[in-house]
Amino acid sequence: MPLLVTGSIGIDTVETPAGRREDVVGGSAIYFSYAASFFTPVRLVGVVGEDHPRNLLKVFDDREVDTSGLEVRKGSKTFRWHGSYVENLNEAVTVEVDLNVLAERAPKIPHHFLDSRYVFLANTHPVLQQEMLASLKSPRLVVADTMNLWIQTQRDELCKLLGRIHGLVLNDGEARLLTEEKNLINAARAVLKMGPRFVVIKKGEHGSMLVTQNDEVFVLPAYPADKVVDPTGAGDSFAGGMMGYLATQGTFSPATVKRAMAFGTVVASYTIADFSLGGLQATDRDQIDQRWHEFKQAMSF
Amino acid sequence: MPLLVTGSIGIDTVETPAGRREDVVGGSAIYFSYAASFFTPVRLVGVVGEDHPRNLLKVFDDREVDTSGLEVRKGSKTFRWHGSYVENLNEAVTVEVDLNVLAERAPKIPHHFLDSRYVFLANTHPVLQQEMLASLKSPRLVVADTMNLWIQTQRDELCKLLGRIHGLVLNDGEARLLTEEKNLINAARAVLKMGPRFVVIKKGEHGSMLVTQNDEVFVLPAYPADKVVDPTGAGDSFAGGMMGYLATQGTFSPATVKRAMAFGTVVASYTIADFSLGGLQATDRDQIDQRWHEFKQAMSF
Repeated sequence: MPLLVTGSIGIDTVETPAGRREDVVGGSAIYFSYAASFFTPVRLVGVVGEDHPRNLLKVFDDREVDTSGLEVRKGSKTFRWHGSYVENLNEAVTVEVDLNVLAERAPKIPHHFLDSRYVFLANTHPVLQQEMLASLKSPRLVVADTMNLWIQTQRDELCKLLGRIHGLVLNDGEARLLTEEKNLINAARAVLKMGPRFVVIKKGEHGSMLVTQNDEVFVLPAYPADKVVDPTGAGDSFAGGMMGYLATQGTFSPATVKRAMAFGTVVASYTIADFSLGGLQATDRDQIDQRWHEFKQAMSF
Repeated sequence: MPLLVTGSIGIDTVETPAGRREDVVGGSAIYFSYAASFFTPVRLVGVVGEDHPRNLLKVFDDREVDTSGLEVRKGSKTFRWHGSYVENLNEAVTVEVDLNVLAERAPKIPHHFLDSRYVFLANTHPVLQQEMLASLKSPRLVVADTMNLWIQTQRDELCKLLGRIHGLVLNDGEARLLTEEKNLINAARAVLKMGPRFVVIKKGEHGSMLVTQNDEVFVLPAYPADKVVDPTGAGDSFAGGMMGYLATQGTFSPATVKRAMAFGTVVASYTIADFSLGGLQATDRDQIDQRWHEFKQAMSF
């Protein structure tokens, strides 16, 4: 089933211990879409300015990603992010960020996308997330991501959104900030009281955790990686792999979400092995499936 | 098979967000012995001063722990540690530490313990660890723990020890300090070059990792706990559960070590649920086995 994603598309400058890349393709929706497209057709909705990266449209040339929802807005500038992982590979320091077109009105979801049943609202302003969700005809599984900025400045709107979605994906710091609970299981439970049926907490190099409304708890380590070049997009790739797999399953039972999280973990392990989309571009579904089985084997005892 | 352990025995004062306990029984060998005794008979070697806790000898009353290697040294004072987890449940701040009797000569291993084949050298001075190891007749599986203090001040002696043991258990910060490798897999590989056949890196609330000389990598999350009262002794309990199980298996193949680490994880989950030995005293082997199966189930996907 096609998977609709809306989120940021940007131009990144990234510094890591392995080097520096300027003006590369980035943004949550880009990583998510590429990662999800290993599993299912993707419908991408986003907006860039006239200064978008030249190779942006080429990124999805060989992928099942429908970019007809990508708006190139005249007179606007593309979202830009400059981050550094030089001190800590597990957490970016934002050197500079320019919201640019992301601070304007949301992109419009094309009419032929409005029947999408699987939806991922990648991190953006929760009012925009709600507007986009409201325009869909019959969504079956809606999962959202968010970030510190919205938790701190748009808590009420974020809470409204949480009442309307099935799943929330967020990182450990965000979960603690949103709920004021230090313990992650209790933080997840507090999120569930706000509406979602399941919450997935991303812990970077420490893996991820699922808690469901039936209080099922699942913990999954990250794929053990001995070479991390650039962690940018790892969380979005995790979400993309997870949602891409879920969209093929037609159910989001805890057992299915667990398998999906393991696919997300494996896809993210490719993302961090190179800068920008390089790691994802260098792999394919067969390699992903093989690593998934190796991971499952390595995890069993 | 009986499991020999040598390590610290102490009087702890501990502060956590859940409260404060003064002058309770503690020390690496105490937690280790109690944890291991759920699986196999334990032979405890250690030394305390005349001021040892009154209930120290009663702790093992109902356990298969042979305390005939416990020396009460006249004129000496017991090791004391005062730690606080008030700011960070995952890492203790040492408020005060008095090595006392631990800075003196090592306790003697009783003659009837010298045939021990399974041995855990809990954290103490690496010269003492080597001396005790040298006195054993035919050890079959020797695993050691260490700490920052010895890595920084006794690196040469620690390296000598590493050439004589089968396995090393240490935490993530110690592994990085010992090897100057930031990436934990590479840190583990660097440790393996120093001699051991396997290394287990403890990551506190983030679980543990095994790397073997065949470059097998296994990652295991911590047991998901929503109530952490006092993390003191969690790492020693993990090692105790792991070694206790290994001593019953007669092999330390990677598959066996993996199962053993899962037992260690489960035993540690009881330790952190109460102060001092309270959590371990409140459980039994049946509960541990049941939680092990639940953990295995929760981990599978």
